[in-house]
Amino acid sequence: MANIKEIARIAGVSVTTVSRVLNNHPYVSKDKRTAVLETIEQLNYTRNMNAVHLITGRTGAVAVILPYINSFYFSVVMDGLAQAALAAQYRLILCQTNYVPEEELKVLDMLRNKEIDGVIIVSTALKPEVIESYTIYGPVVTCQNSGERQFSSVYIEHYAAFRHGLEYLYGKGHRRIGYCEGRQNGSSASIRQNAFQDFLAEKGLLFDPEWMIFDCMREEDGAEVARRLLDNPDRSGRPEAMMISGDHIAAGLIIEARKHGLKIPEDLAVMGFDNQPIGRLLGITTIDNQLYQMGEAAFGIIHEQINGSSLPVTRKLDYRIIERSTV
Amino acid sequence: MANIKEIARIAGVSVTTVSRVLNNHPYVSKDKRTAVLETIEQLNYTRNMNAVHLITGRTGAVAVILPYINSFYFSVVMDGLAQAALAAQYRLILCQTNYVPEEELKVLDMLRNKEIDGVIIVSTALKPEVIESYTIYGPVVTCQNSGERQFSSVYIEHYAAFRHGLEYLYGKGHRRIGYCEGRQNGSSASIRQNAFQDFLAEKGLLFDPEWMIFDCMREEDGAEVARRLLDNPDRSGRPEAMMISGDHIAAGLIIEARKHGLKIPEDLAVMGFDNQPIGRLLGITTIDNQLYQMGEAAFGIIHEQINGSSLPVTRKLDYRIIERSTV
Repeated sequence: MANIKEIARIAGVSVTTVSRVLNNHPYVSKDKRTAVLETIEQLNYTRNMNAVHLITGRTGAVAVILPYINSFYFSVVMDGLAQAALAAQYRLILCQTNYVPEEELKVLDMLRNKEIDGVIIVSTALKPEVIESYTIYGPVVTCQNSGERQFSSVYIEHYAAFRHGLEYLYGKGHRRIGYCEGRQNGSSASIRQNAFQDFLAEKGLLFDPEWMIFDCMREEDGAEVARRLLDNPDRSGRPEAMMISGDHIAAGLIIEARKHGLKIPEDLAVMGFDNQPIGRLLGITTIDNQLYQMGEAAFGIIHEQINGSSLPVTRKLDYRIIERSTV
Repeated sequence: MANIKEIARIAGVSVTTVSRVLNNHPYVSKDKRTAVLETIEQLNYTRNMNAVHLITGRTGAVAVILPYINSFYFSVVMDGLAQAALAAQYRLILCQTNYVPEEELKVLDMLRNKEIDGVIIVSTALKPEVIESYTIYGPVVTCQNSGERQFSSVYIEHYAAFRHGLEYLYGKGHRRIGYCEGRQNGSSASIRQNAFQDFLAEKGLLFDPEWMIFDCMREEDGAEVARRLLDNPDRSGRPEAMMISGDHIAAGLIIEARKHGLKIPEDLAVMGFDNQPIGRLLGITTIDNQLYQMGEAAFGIIHEQINGSSLPVTRKLDYRIIERSTV
């Protein structure tokens, strides 16, 4: 394949002129442009985009860090990101890192190495100070509140949202409340856990550590929780209501509980999270946390930042309780 | 930021030597390597990977074409792809194209422009001959049978799998069989549709066009099908069994049908597809089509092809019926 130098030599123009033509730069005379284009056609030259990126200092690509794509939460955020990226004609590099910090650092190194124009961090195992240290190389946006740190973020207030859900359960008369969560030490999970414990303490409600159940990732984990709760034949030793971060987990719990003859919400009230299709189907009362909009907004911010607005932006999205039939 | 030329000048070596050091090329003397590295450290030089890609002719990136990520099918294939890519330290560019041919062509153009080392097509609106025409620029792997076309593929036999499922329903005594499908003209969907119609014709079973329902994409679409079927108060005017391509659609149908007092499988047998978690939870009899393994295998093939094995490979994956309680 011919390179830019050869094209310049054959066309009788400078290398700069060839690169201007390749990049549709306006300051090229019509004659020179024609000469370059004809030479390219003769040589059947295929543009090497790496050369274009090297010249322009832009790659048109943004990396997305997330632990795994195969979950409702992440695939919906990714959907929002991807739709916005497509509209802006940007490319997304999907970096599924399984929460391995070294892999996440490799992605941030791509920003330093100018392989990408920005990084969107949907969920991470890295500490905020580490993320902040990479912002000298280019824009970074997280989908968790960046607080005082000097990078952009788009988020919902998990503390307020979760308390809101708990108030709703409380308002319906429930006093013995349990809680299902994903990763115990996830940053949003930790916030929700605090909201749960603070709420129980403030209301003077019983806190039973057995009713706070972690590592609920899949539908089957919800079913397992139902079996565990039902192991206790004494109804007063069981929660009356469950706050569950993920409608798919709530669905697993509800389907299994009904198999054992429990009435929802009479015997056990269930409040979900995420507003998933399975929740709509089963009539699960839930908290809509605008995952698609979060993805869209995150891309919108990184796109603005790549195009010059350098101050960090934080954008808070609303949440809302969707009342259905399980509370 | 310093560029390679400046580093070469300050270190007193050639540009070639600098690029060799950046790429860990063996043929550089220890002295020169030290000089370059010390200069880089002095100048706090950050490697521009676009220059590295330009020099090596490799990008370490593969593009993935799929219509949307937010569906069980595509997110599981993507999970398999991403795990395999992570293990091989390759980057995946997620191209969510909504089945828009122009967007899919832009991704293939990235192969021509040397922005990527290969393309994996999970599902596409493009014709096989169009895909084939791009293979002169680099390796392409599809997740649908490429047949006689000169590109690689990894697939399950949808015709055989679907017939197998229908034989299973038939073996259980069902004669009035209906069918729910996604896109009417999708390439795998067309194959399944043929399998369905061929099977009914061969067995001399009633084919009622009202019982072949397209555009079932979401859980709610399954619930809508249940309502439509129940609109007919005459039970003999309704199918006894439904073949449904997607356990989430089957789940929607089952949950809605039960709300209306139907017993599954006594009043209506349901056979799903994809072996999804919601299917395990509801005990849906289904066909496992190894989506995760499909993603893994597709990446494995493209990785081999990037590293030199140029002949197209087709890899057929097994499917299996998982007997549960809805047939």
